[in-house]
Amino acid sequence: MAEQKTLALVAGAGAGLGQALVSRFQAEGMVTVGLGRTQPDNPIGSFHQVDLSDPGETAPVIADLIATYGPPKIVVHNTAELVISPFLKTTLNDYQRSWTSMVQTLIVLAQSVMQPMVRGGGGTLIVSGATASLRGGAQFSAFASAKFALRGLTQSLAREFQPVGVHITHVTLDGIIDTARSRDRHSLDPAKMMKPEDIAEVYWQLAQQPRSTWTQELDLRPSTEGF
Amino acid sequence: MAEQKTLALVAGAGAGLGQALVSRFQAEGMVTVGLGRTQPDNPIGSFHQVDLSDPGETAPVIADLIATYGPPKIVVHNTAELVISPFLKTTLNDYQRSWTSMVQTLIVLAQSVMQPMVRGGGGTLIVSGATASLRGGAQFSAFASAKFALRGLTQSLAREFQPVGVHITHVTLDGIIDTARSRDRHSLDPAKMMKPEDIAEVYWQLAQQPRSTWTQELDLRPSTEGF
Amino acid sequence: MAEQKTLALVAGAGAGLGQALVSRFQAEGMVTVGLGRTQPDNPIGSFHQVDLSDPGETAPVIADLIATYGPPKIVVHNTAELVISPFLKTTLNDYQRSWTSMVQTLIVLAQSVMQPMVRGGGGTLIVSGATASLRGGAQFSAFASAKFALRGLTQSLAREFQPVGVHITHVTLDGIIDTARSRDRHSLDPAKMMKPEDIAEVYWQLAQQPRSTWTQELDLRPSTEGF
Amino acid sequence: MAEQKTLALVAGAGAGLGQALVSRFQAEGMVTVGLGRTQPDNPIGSFHQVDLSDPGETAPVIADLIATYGPPKIVVHNTAELVISPFLKTTLNDYQRSWTSMVQTLIVLAQSVMQPMVRGGGGTLIVSGATASLRGGAQFSAFASAKFALRGLTQSLAREFQPVGVHITHVTLDGIIDTARSRDRHSLDPAKMMKPEDIAEVYWQLAQQPRSTWTQELDLRPSTEGF
Repeated sequence: MAEQKTLALVAGAGAGLGQALVSRFQAEGMVTVGLGRTQPDNPIGSFHQVDLSDPGETAPVIADLIATYGPPKIVVHNTAELVISPFLKTTLNDYQRSWTSMVQTLIVLAQSVMQPMVRGGGGTLIVSGATASLRGGAQFSAFASAKFALRGLTQSLAREFQPVGVHITHVTLDGIIDTARSRDRHSLDPAKMMKPEDIAEVYWQLAQQPRSTWTQELDLRPSTEGF
Repeated sequence: MAEQKTLALVAGAGAGLGQALVSRFQAEGMVTVGLGRTQPDNPIGSFHQVDLSDPGETAPVIADLIATYGPPKIVVHNTAELVISPFLKTTLNDYQRSWTSMVQTLIVLAQSVMQPMVRGGGGTLIVSGATASLRGGAQFSAFASAKFALRGLTQSLAREFQPVGVHITHVTLDGIIDTARSRDRHSLDPAKMMKPEDIAEVYWQLAQQPRSTWTQELDLRPSTEGF
Repeated sequence: MAEQKTLALVAGAGAGLGQALVSRFQAEGMVTVGLGRTQPDNPIGSFHQVDLSDPGETAPVIADLIATYGPPKIVVHNTAELVISPFLKTTLNDYQRSWTSMVQTLIVLAQSVMQPMVRGGGGTLIVSGATASLRGGAQFSAFASAKFALRGLTQSLAREFQPVGVHITHVTLDGIIDTARSRDRHSLDPAKMMKPEDIAEVYWQLAQQPRSTWTQELDLRPSTEGF
Repeated sequence: MAEQKTLALVAGAGAGLGQALVSRFQAEGMVTVGLGRTQPDNPIGSFHQVDLSDPGETAPVIADLIATYGPPKIVVHNTAELVISPFLKTTLNDYQRSWTSMVQTLIVLAQSVMQPMVRGGGGTLIVSGATASLRGGAQFSAFASAKFALRGLTQSLAREFQPVGVHITHVTLDGIIDTARSRDRHSLDPAKMMKPEDIAEVYWQLAQQPRSTWTQELDLRPSTEGF
């Protein structure tokens, strides 16, 4: 049940899941635009290189897209910046970079799209969380504090904007996403990783939920993952 | 992407959501069987009147169905027994009835289907929760304690059976389901209720999730619902 | 700051923590009565052998105590019944026994004491939870579903009775309590177990919290415990 | 059971709760030092005016105190910066200021004290949370995202430092603290507010918990508070 010619934005589209989301939304006939600092080599669909934490850079790009295609029906926030280090070796810069790249980017993105989406009759904003959104593990202080912040922010957005028609969802991705980088980094059998296209399918379904049944939070993990 | 000729079971299929689930699974070509104490007037698909809390009644019915159709690919637990009353007026019988009709029924159901499902290569068990699964409100002591128990049981099942191939999901239904009974009971505008067919669509999607991305818990609520 | 001559009840006082609680409250000059199925060999304070799940047995015993000493200022619910077994080997009787011994006993106990406590100007009811109150682990389906139920019930009681002056607290005991039985059963270094008298001190402090600052839920675990 | 001559630090000691904490720890004979941007008019104990988000300012002050008194046995993080505003009117600066004043200050504080505390044989770090630590409400996006971050950071610290002897606790203060400012701002009956000295008593008790029974998270609210 594709929504024809409507706009989808994927913030943090430089790699695995981001590219799978672009691909999934395109397959439904949506004009899908990837946004992020790092342009992938052969991006699927169009890609705008932009520092999403910078409202001066981001707002005009999004305003242009809205002027051309109308307000987005789907917006995904998918930026990540993983820091794993003992607390005493984690620098202030690590914390600030984590917060800026994961939380500030959602603030800037949402401030660029929420008013047009409300006026345009609604849509869906999906935020990618992680295991660390719900549990602050040892050595994950920078990542967990930013992911917790993102979840708190997402709940506030849901409580403010769902009553006026924008569906806001937080997805806890509890496992390793199967990407070239994950296969390099982890010894884990790829059969035990989450497939980007499977996650993208769930995001698509969330974006199709009718107003009678909106999901605010859900988790996703491989069948083999302990939890 | 229907799974042809496979069996779906809906425990607690006597009314709104239960019947919508039967209808949804049938539409995909599944042999769908409703189970429960109270047969609806014009049941969709087939219906077996059975006391699901009684293993002596339930096990043979399910064993027969499995002998005929093979292990079920989808099993939904959807029984409910709502008691709202001040603590000092809530009787032991209220608590026992709540527990028996919501928790014992899942135990009996799961003990009838889990081994065949594991041997048959997997499938999905979906449990209907409520707001009271996560929050024990005043006057809801019987209902909340049973719904909490159901969630704890569901988590245990997930941790035991997901590694061997059966997907176990708990859905928190945070709102009023739009049924004839709800419209009688509540003054709430039906536009602010959850449509049974919309919930059924989500259950269907959950049952299709591939092993790379299983949801263990999610919530569903109308866009207008405070939370 | 002892409350002289006032009554404390400890339901589930047959062993380690229960006896430590009796001892702690007695040390403050309270008339402390242990209740439970199994009388310890040399009980501290007085002990009434009673099946707490049976209102016919329990209510008169408590009514007598209240007639003599006035309504209790502290009531602890501390009964436990641990079942660890694979789901398919856990019997209906295991579930019912777990529920009866942990949930039904709190219902019976609270129904015997809440009205006198409210009329008597308040007091504190403390419920002992466990790791399984918050997480349903594999093989813990009977225990976790009962402990989840207990937490839901406790929340309902808190929301109904705190506004009328009875403080209701749920303590998540996340670790192994150091008792003779634990030392037999577990290879864990006793230095990594929770001392019953340390837990009892926390329960005492909770019972002293003034109405301006009541704790509804807290956890306790050894410094060495992973979580 | 005072710990004589040992050091206690209260970060965010400029007003109600902060001053009550200084007073409580002093009453036990501890050398108690308040830290913060705004010096109260007649500070209890000693007060160092310092921007706690600035490691260049904070680290030397704390190093000096440790050189004089030894590592602190109690450290409280109690800074707050409340922003309530609709999302589209909340500026990036509001978010950054909230994060800097609540999260960065804990990072700087903990990096100044953790190593000395571990080497000195342990101690307790207590972090003041709020309702917004667990629930992101509408109009609370800046405050909630910072308070969520603080809780995630606190969990990470607990999992890293509890095994080496430093107790880390997060207290969810779910209500309005009774201060001159609260009485001005809110129409709420002060009898329904939390008394700073009652909260301080709980913090003192937490700091006395022996290693066998450490609380990682607890809530505090007035008996009259809905939740």
